[in-house]
Amino acid sequence: MKKKPTATLLWSGPDQSGIVARLALFVHERGHNIIHSDNHTDGSTGLFLTRIEWELPRGFGEDDRRQLEDAFSPLATKLGGSWHIHYSDMRARVAVFVSKQDHCLLDLLWRHRNGELDAHIPIVVGNHASLEDRCHGFGAEFIHVPIDAKSKDDAEARQLSLLRTHEIDLVVLAKYMQILSNDFLAKAPPVINIHHSFLPAFIGARPYHQAFERGVKVIGATAHYASPELDAGPIIEQDVVRISHRDEVKDLIRKGKDLERVVLARAVRQHLLNRVLVYGNRTVVFE
Amino acid sequence: MKKKPTATLLWSGPDQSGIVARLALFVHERGHNIIHSDNHTDGSTGLFLTRIEWELPRGFGEDDRRQLEDAFSPLATKLGGSWHIHYSDMRARVAVFVSKQDHCLLDLLWRHRNGELDAHIPIVVGNHASLEDRCHGFGAEFIHVPIDAKSKDDAEARQLSLLRTHEIDLVVLAKYMQILSNDFLAKAPPVINIHHSFLPAFIGARPYHQAFERGVKVIGATAHYASPELDAGPIIEQDVVRISHRDEVKDLIRKGKDLERVVLARAVRQHLLNRVLVYGNRTVVFE
Amino acid sequence: MKKKPTATLLWSGPDQSGIVARLALFVHERGHNIIHSDNHTDGSTGLFLTRIEWELPRGFGEDDRRQLEDAFSPLATKLGGSWHIHYSDMRARVAVFVSKQDHCLLDLLWRHRNGELDAHIPIVVGNHASLEDRCHGFGAEFIHVPIDAKSKDDAEARQLSLLRTHEIDLVVLAKYMQILSNDFLAKAPPVINIHHSFLPAFIGARPYHQAFERGVKVIGATAHYASPELDAGPIIEQDVVRISHRDEVKDLIRKGKDLERVVLARAVRQHLLNRVLVYGNRTVVFE
Amino acid sequence: MKKKPTATLLWSGPDQSGIVARLALFVHERGHNIIHSDNHTDGSTGLFLTRIEWELPRGFGEDDRRQLEDAFSPLATKLGGSWHIHYSDMRARVAVFVSKQDHCLLDLLWRHRNGELDAHIPIVVGNHASLEDRCHGFGAEFIHVPIDAKSKDDAEARQLSLLRTHEIDLVVLAKYMQILSNDFLAKAPPVINIHHSFLPAFIGARPYHQAFERGVKVIGATAHYASPELDAGPIIEQDVVRISHRDEVKDLIRKGKDLERVVLARAVRQHLLNRVLVYGNRTVVFE
Repeated sequence: MKKKPTATLLWSGPDQSGIVARLALFVHERGHNIIHSDNHTDGSTGLFLTRIEWELPRGFGEDDRRQLEDAFSPLATKLGGSWHIHYSDMRARVAVFVSKQDHCLLDLLWRHRNGELDAHIPIVVGNHASLEDRCHGFGAEFIHVPIDAKSKDDAEARQLSLLRTHEIDLVVLAKYMQILSNDFLAKAPPVINIHHSFLPAFIGARPYHQAFERGVKVIGATAHYASPELDAGPIIEQDVVRISHRDEVKDLIRKGKDLERVVLARAVRQHLLNRVLVYGNRTVVFE
Repeated sequence: MKKKPTATLLWSGPDQSGIVARLALFVHERGHNIIHSDNHTDGSTGLFLTRIEWELPRGFGEDDRRQLEDAFSPLATKLGGSWHIHYSDMRARVAVFVSKQDHCLLDLLWRHRNGELDAHIPIVVGNHASLEDRCHGFGAEFIHVPIDAKSKDDAEARQLSLLRTHEIDLVVLAKYMQILSNDFLAKAPPVINIHHSFLPAFIGARPYHQAFERGVKVIGATAHYASPELDAGPIIEQDVVRISHRDEVKDLIRKGKDLERVVLARAVRQHLLNRVLVYGNRTVVFE
Repeated sequence: MKKKPTATLLWSGPDQSGIVARLALFVHERGHNIIHSDNHTDGSTGLFLTRIEWELPRGFGEDDRRQLEDAFSPLATKLGGSWHIHYSDMRARVAVFVSKQDHCLLDLLWRHRNGELDAHIPIVVGNHASLEDRCHGFGAEFIHVPIDAKSKDDAEARQLSLLRTHEIDLVVLAKYMQILSNDFLAKAPPVINIHHSFLPAFIGARPYHQAFERGVKVIGATAHYASPELDAGPIIEQDVVRISHRDEVKDLIRKGKDLERVVLARAVRQHLLNRVLVYGNRTVVFE
Repeated sequence: MKKKPTATLLWSGPDQSGIVARLALFVHERGHNIIHSDNHTDGSTGLFLTRIEWELPRGFGEDDRRQLEDAFSPLATKLGGSWHIHYSDMRARVAVFVSKQDHCLLDLLWRHRNGELDAHIPIVVGNHASLEDRCHGFGAEFIHVPIDAKSKDDAEARQLSLLRTHEIDLVVLAKYMQILSNDFLAKAPPVINIHHSFLPAFIGARPYHQAFERGVKVIGATAHYASPELDAGPIIEQDVVRISHRDEVKDLIRKGKDLERVVLARAVRQHLLNRVLVYGNRTVVFE
């Protein structure tokens, strides 16, 4: 039997007495059953953040959903929160941006084919043409949008147009070695980037070379939402691996690849499961 | 300003529609504010498990608490759940059982003095006398209860008597190298044990020797509730550390000690914060 | 400039005074330069194990190598050791055995294409046909050798014939869900297997189901040389990942895949770099 | 039977043909038996670094050792290397510097008592008096050397005098929250510091607060040799622990303590075993 679709509320707003009960009651009064709820109160800001997921009745269609949200809206206004309701049967549409390295792209495509990422991946956009053949057999169209210093504005305009045409909900930078302009970020859907260091260490170019120079004993990778300030957006996931004096820069790059693809995939998966809530420059990941 | 005391409900029972709302509503109707709630539905058993923590009004005394529980009881019966309410200002009383190794004992005493473990530790019970001086200055009374094959029944009777006299809520086996009888376990409060392997590998005696013989590349430690079957009780926490061919048994023992004390301390802390819910032979740890 | 080829001696034998100097001197007297040497003395067996790698002069061809080994042989006999000299420009030939799961296979093929595995992979042998298309574009020939209870002997005979025809030096079981007969193991080159548990926990079938049942908090994967006793061969590499009560069996399987492919790849890479020395049921991995 | 004492040579110098053999031969010609040798060639600098440990004959006293070094000296000059020979029966003398936090101090004292650190710890120097009672029963004298802005020069002079009087070979900063002057560092023996972040992230004061602000998902600790530039000296050991949005600054501090004491202890142990070789701003740790 197919699982029922679910609705997931992501909420953030001022902490107040009774808020857990009120939100739960809203779902309960509609006869829906909560299958997961988790919340977090941030002591330093007084913010209450929650994720509530509940099963929808069979045949709960577009009109029902509009009515649900219309009913929720005044409650939300009264409680002063920001919110979004996501439906599990509405699969997100993801665009993957790449340059020349294929490990993160292949990993995402494999996981997608394997059912680990609940999304569509209609397009892969590369500033080089070299990864085109990597997309064969995965159902994603490869689109070459070359970029150089002169053409950057035009290229970003073309990328934004592609995002609109393909109704993209999420952009994943899978080792896309270009810096996106603030204008692009303002107009694009959320963008998840993988940075090949343990941020905030080694911001910017050639982090593995920086790590080698500094003589660290552990290297890391960081998946974060892209923001105007380079490598400074809200962090979703990080992980590390030990290295030794035997490891040269090329070994750091090799070991780092294993980290990068796993860290990026975990972040994308959590985002697609509507488990990531951004507030300020921080994230709550409801695991 | 001192933090208000909290009440924490641990609940397990059959999953049913509206249960999250009903429990939250019970708290809300009393004008109390939930500061943390988390739940888990076990798909294989149909069990709903939750932890709800809320602030109590100032001056919410014994009578108020009895009334609260009296009011909750019929709801619980109706919903068919097992439950326990814990109050954060009622500090648990812990007995630590030891043999000759001091690392877990010292670690628990340090953490306790440092405020990491919200509990009293009135007694340390040793089957050898050698750790008596380790307890000086920590406010715990060391009691020597020697055990040999003949005296085991008497010794356990004396231990049980000590647990009653000191109103012990939790026994921690901090490298207590004796096997407790089923009778003892039936009469004692919950018992947390640290086993120096990654269970279920290397059950029983000399796990580091076993690990060395097998040539593993990683060793572990496991904190679990003691149960009649040896090393088979519900697992609370596990962790591991890498080893190499350079490590002899004595190195495994040395590296293992660092694991043991940390894994045990984490398990005890989670238990004392009422975050551990046992069901079947498994635990939910609400982190 | 291309790197010079190297020779690598793997040696095990009784520990004795001067052995480090004697072996180093043998290389030095030929005017070759040692670029790496590492050794290990196993206290419990009195065995001395070493790996010495040195640069060969340009043009050091087959005859030179035969002379080198002819010269070394009497010294080895005198010192009573077992030895093997490997030349870095002689790339090993690897056969990958698979069933239906593709993650380990794809990972190996990707690493191979990326230059991480210094070997040829001429053939992939599957007992199901379903992974044939996964091999396209990677230069490996997929060969379907179906197996059932009746045909097992014939199938293994055909596999052994393939190993001979393709001059295979190493068999990698990349989630090959069949048990190899002792006869096969006796006739085949070394076989590396990936087992989806932290051995010796959860030997045999369905380890993730076993792990879920036991309620562990960490799961693992183990790469080992296959031996007649199931899942009991010398361990090359292990690693683990944390799980929580939220993880069902399908999540253990998903998380485990990330472990399996990395653990297997590390083991295969170390083997191909001649860094693994087996003695008894243990390995030294010279990292 | 007591183990024989060993000599350990730490060597760094230009890489050259035959150097492994020459050094091994020097030991062999004296009839001593090498029990461990490991080396590393740093490709970027052309440096050859090695650690060779060999057993000394019984009764190999001061004169023998002087002769050994006198014999080695001309060879070293010819090969152009820097070197130091350490004798395992000459226990290093360690001074521990502390402020108010006791976890690293207690951990070192406990390990020392347990035989994990092969050294003497004659003195503990505190700029506050509060940890004096922590030293009772461990055989280390606590010396209170208060420091304020005015008295810093005098205090450091007194500290240097204590180091001389007690013939200290190594200073361990066990959460000593003062910055040492360059003059002190120039006159003192090697100094190992523990910094409570994953360097080079979060240099300077209040790293856990910085980490919280940045919203990282992993925190770390770093043990390094102190050098004139703050938190920039050669790194010996690092490790990390995961955190989540539930962790406030006080939780980071609590979790960090477990890291700090283990990372510091590992670094001190490796130093005392003469396994750490510094070159440039990097270390080789021969494990």
